[in-house]
Amino acid sequence: IDVEGKIVIARYGGSWRRIKPKVAAEHGAIGTILFSDPIDDGFVAGDVYPDGPYRMEHGVQRGSVLDMPQYPGDPLTPGYGATAGAERLAIDEAPTIMKIPVLPISYSDATPLLEAMGGPVAPRSWQGGLPFTYHIGPGPATVRLHLEFDWDLAPALNVVARIEGSEYPDEWIVRGNHRDGWALGAADPISGLVTLMEEARAIGELMETGWRPRRTIVYAAWDAEEPALLGSTEWAEHHGAELREKAALYINTDGTGRGFLNAGGSHSLERFITQIARDVDDPKTEATVLERLNAAIAANGDFEEAMRDDIRLSPLGSGSDYTPFLQHLGIPSLNLSFGGESGGGSYHSQYDSFDHYTRFIDPDFAYGVTLTKVTGRATLRFAQADVLPYRFSNLADNVSMYAEEIEEIADRMRQETTQRNRLIQEGLIELAADPTEPFVAPSPDEAVPHFNFAPLLNAIAELESEARAYDGLLQTVQAQGLSASQMARVNQNVMEIEQLLTDERGLPKRPWFRHQIYAPGFYTGYGVKTLPGIREAIEEREFELVDEQMRRISDAIERVNARLEEAAAILGRPVT
Amino acid sequence: IDVEGKIVIARYGGSWRRIKPKVAAEHGAIGTILFSDPIDDGFVAGDVYPDGPYRMEHGVQRGSVLDMPQYPGDPLTPGYGATAGAERLAIDEAPTIMKIPVLPISYSDATPLLEAMGGPVAPRSWQGGLPFTYHIGPGPATVRLHLEFDWDLAPALNVVARIEGSEYPDEWIVRGNHRDGWALGAADPISGLVTLMEEARAIGELMETGWRPRRTIVYAAWDAEEPALLGSTEWAEHHGAELREKAALYINTDGTGRGFLNAGGSHSLERFITQIARDVDDPKTEATVLERLNAAIAANGDFEEAMRDDIRLSPLGSGSDYTPFLQHLGIPSLNLSFGGESGGGSYHSQYDSFDHYTRFIDPDFAYGVTLTKVTGRATLRFAQADVLPYRFSNLADNVSMYAEEIEEIADRMRQETTQRNRLIQEGLIELAADPTEPFVAPSPDEAVPHFNFAPLLNAIAELESEARAYDGLLQTVQAQGLSASQMARVNQNVMEIEQLLTDERGLPKRPWFRHQIYAPGFYTGYGVKTLPGIREAIEEREFELVDEQMRRISDAIERVNARLEEAAAILGRPVT
Repeated sequence: IDVEGKIVIARYGGSWRRIKPKVAAEHGAIGTILFSDPIDDGFVAGDVYPDGPYRMEHGVQRGSVLDMPQYPGDPLTPGYGATAGAERLAIDEAPTIMKIPVLPISYSDATPLLEAMGGPVAPRSWQGGLPFTYHIGPGPATVRLHLEFDWDLAPALNVVARIEGSEYPDEWIVRGNHRDGWALGAADPISGLVTLMEEARAIGELMETGWRPRRTIVYAAWDAEEPALLGSTEWAEHHGAELREKAALYINTDGTGRGFLNAGGSHSLERFITQIARDVDDPKTEATVLERLNAAIAANGDFEEAMRDDIRLSPLGSGSDYTPFLQHLGIPSLNLSFGGESGGGSYHSQYDSFDHYTRFIDPDFAYGVTLTKVTGRATLRFAQADVLPYRFSNLADNVSMYAEEIEEIADRMRQETTQRNRLIQEGLIELAADPTEPFVAPSPDEAVPHFNFAPLLNAIAELESEARAYDGLLQTVQAQGLSASQMARVNQNVMEIEQLLTDERGLPKRPWFRHQIYAPGFYTGYGVKTLPGIREAIEEREFELVDEQMRRISDAIERVNARLEEAAAILGRPVT
Repeated sequence: IDVEGKIVIARYGGSWRRIKPKVAAEHGAIGTILFSDPIDDGFVAGDVYPDGPYRMEHGVQRGSVLDMPQYPGDPLTPGYGATAGAERLAIDEAPTIMKIPVLPISYSDATPLLEAMGGPVAPRSWQGGLPFTYHIGPGPATVRLHLEFDWDLAPALNVVARIEGSEYPDEWIVRGNHRDGWALGAADPISGLVTLMEEARAIGELMETGWRPRRTIVYAAWDAEEPALLGSTEWAEHHGAELREKAALYINTDGTGRGFLNAGGSHSLERFITQIARDVDDPKTEATVLERLNAAIAANGDFEEAMRDDIRLSPLGSGSDYTPFLQHLGIPSLNLSFGGESGGGSYHSQYDSFDHYTRFIDPDFAYGVTLTKVTGRATLRFAQADVLPYRFSNLADNVSMYAEEIEEIADRMRQETTQRNRLIQEGLIELAADPTEPFVAPSPDEAVPHFNFAPLLNAIAELESEARAYDGLLQTVQAQGLSASQMARVNQNVMEIEQLLTDERGLPKRPWFRHQIYAPGFYTGYGVKTLPGIREAIEEREFELVDEQMRRISDAIERVNARLEEAAAILGRPVT
């Protein structure tokens, strides 16, 4: 199908919403219509609003189609704060702005368009929930797309409150949630924002008693997250140098619901978050948040994971305000919410309302309160800790798993490529094809070479040993008591470790993304790619990039290894 | 959900159509409505008739709901021919007659019924293609079901023609296809029946030249296949003793289409059918039927299977007239058709018409002609062979694979049962469940014991060795030339081998099914269960049956081993 000069209609889902108009534009399309299909979050998924939580026929999912996997934030100020006087790109130079108009519509509005399409029957997995056979076009119906845009600059207003630390004012805990929504925004962002406000209110009460945190706490309600993480990104870029010097932790929340703790973030925080989940009660059962989460993992069939010492933090891709902190600056980050028993189809539509939230998501706000208990403990324990509670064995454990995954991906691709090329060369694909259908001969792929994983595996092996040494020593020494100077020196050392995992040169094609362990996928948008430099080079068959990316990731891990050795020396281990 | 006293509505598919009303009746339902959902063969699958081949809104799938996995044929004459004077059960004693009324309807007629259902939202996999959320009831709508039945006896008229063999009149090749259809029956059965008639016509022409086959050929057009394989079953039961003495092969066809050879049957016929597929050209490509089939298997990802020396014959379950021959009498059987590029939704409806067939299935009958070339060669080569072309190494190869599968099933069930019981005992399933939904506590399952597979594995190991010896010896000796008496004695020996795989006591709960290697599943209906005695005892958790069934299957294989040793001795191998 040739989309040159055409308007493309695409179903939401599968990859992040921007990817479809982006690929359409790359192939010459002049506009894209995105529709929410009832098979994904409408009547096929369950009863629709107002009877149930799912998307009703007029529900439209809005959302940004800026190229955030390239860089988020203001398209006109890449990498620096969009302050009043900042130098700006012209709109038509800004590489992250979508080049063709895109319109999201409801399945009610999509129905006449889809029914009027001819051409071949859509592949089975593209067929959605509407009651007719989907065709992929082109035409025969024609569509006129008339959109109006406001290209004026407008201010985004972050609300930022700061509590100066009494003892370590230059070690910051930053706690954020965005405050803008596409329409009413009851779930996204208000359900998360109120947990932040409740946490701040509680700390405010503490402060009225004269209490002060040992470290500085910054509360932020970000504006303009929805268009492109604008508020958080511009603030983080503008304050980048100071944040890299001072920020020990960024804790993010966003929309939240009912059910189980969803915890994502830097793997060095796994023990920390596990201890908090053990101390907070689930509001609807007799169990703790940790017990309930592990029950769900076990009931889902993964006993081994449920028995793991610590919660495994999901690696972070993108989709909320942690991105500039973690992936651009290298600040250790957490993203926390509850979910798994809410769901529905109000996302980014005008049906994301108080009525919807209180009927279908978290009717008595019990899990919202629980989230505050979790994030409040996280903020306070970090603010008050003697030694900052990172544990690097968990980092080593996960990075080792990622390396194994990528080795397996490469092996599988190599095998599949060999097999497919052989099928093509022997003419078997053509012979197996329906002779009454037009046959497009597939081209063989470049063979997948064997890659040198040794530098990475050696760096990871050393990380395992250094991390075990540091974590073990810290535990021993903490029991004996540390001097104030030891603590201060260790903290300064370890709060920079996440930054050592970034590389100033960034990732291929997107230098803004510097973290060597976590990035949103270039073609998945929100979905994470771990060890992204090598994973994407292999997956996208850019094999010539692999060696250099392997070196950068390995170097980053070796920087961490050296730093862990220094930190251990401060704690009293003889330098080996 | 309690169905006691209710009318159940069920979607076609998943298991054979009878299974749903059967289970409904077991739970006290008083009637069942079956509907064809557009997600299975209607507009979700592709364009509907008359634009395309799929089931249109008024298409109704009819079909038998007799308990054929218990025994097929006349419900009133289990195990013997329903001749005019035969003793008959009373209708209300006949165990295979459905005890509650069942009505198939179209998705157009199902829509108002399903829309009127309340109760919980159906599980995701039950949701079909109609444009609303499915609920599982009960009610609130009520349904009146008024059906009329004709319980009169009526004759079923098989058309049977016989060509006496010139040399071995008491060795028969039986070739059959049914002649009755639910409505017009263009595809089912006529597309298959015409291939049989064309084959008979060609042999008739040969006979007009004075030619006679060496063995006897029987052509049969079965009546009343659709209600319960009535024509073939009663004929096979009535002539059972003679067939067990004389039949060397039963070749079945039924509806056929366009694409690739679908070959199922006794594994001892794999080399035989492979040689035929190598000699017949695919009508739409430059390849042979064999090359095209192997290309499809390879393109589908299974290189190893495509490289196998011989086509792997699918083991036969039920659904056509081979069942009484293979599974009741133990006659070596084949079931042949073409398919994979036709498909659609006319099955068992009034849309199975000449127009539908010639537009969407095999427009120029090219594959029908090709099927005649395949079956005609099969009939003639068997009729004319010096030594009957069974090859038992293929039997050994497949039976060994089935035994491995069942060992794996048992291991997996054991592991899953242990895990599930542990989840239940530790309360983790309850803790993982949504506390706002009613919770029904699951019961632990009986632990899966370890079974003694040794007798079976020993018998199979010996089968591998005896089969290799016989097959190899036959090849050597055939090259040298065999005496007429050797050939006659070997043929008498080997044509009974399939029968040695039957057990007079039959399978648990269904003595009519005697074959120890192939049976339709008790709860799948048409789908095959290989080594059914042990496979179903394990799958249905009737563990106390396993040892006895293991013994019967092993004994059957040992009977084959002894017979192969005798046959080899006739060919000149010293008895070991």
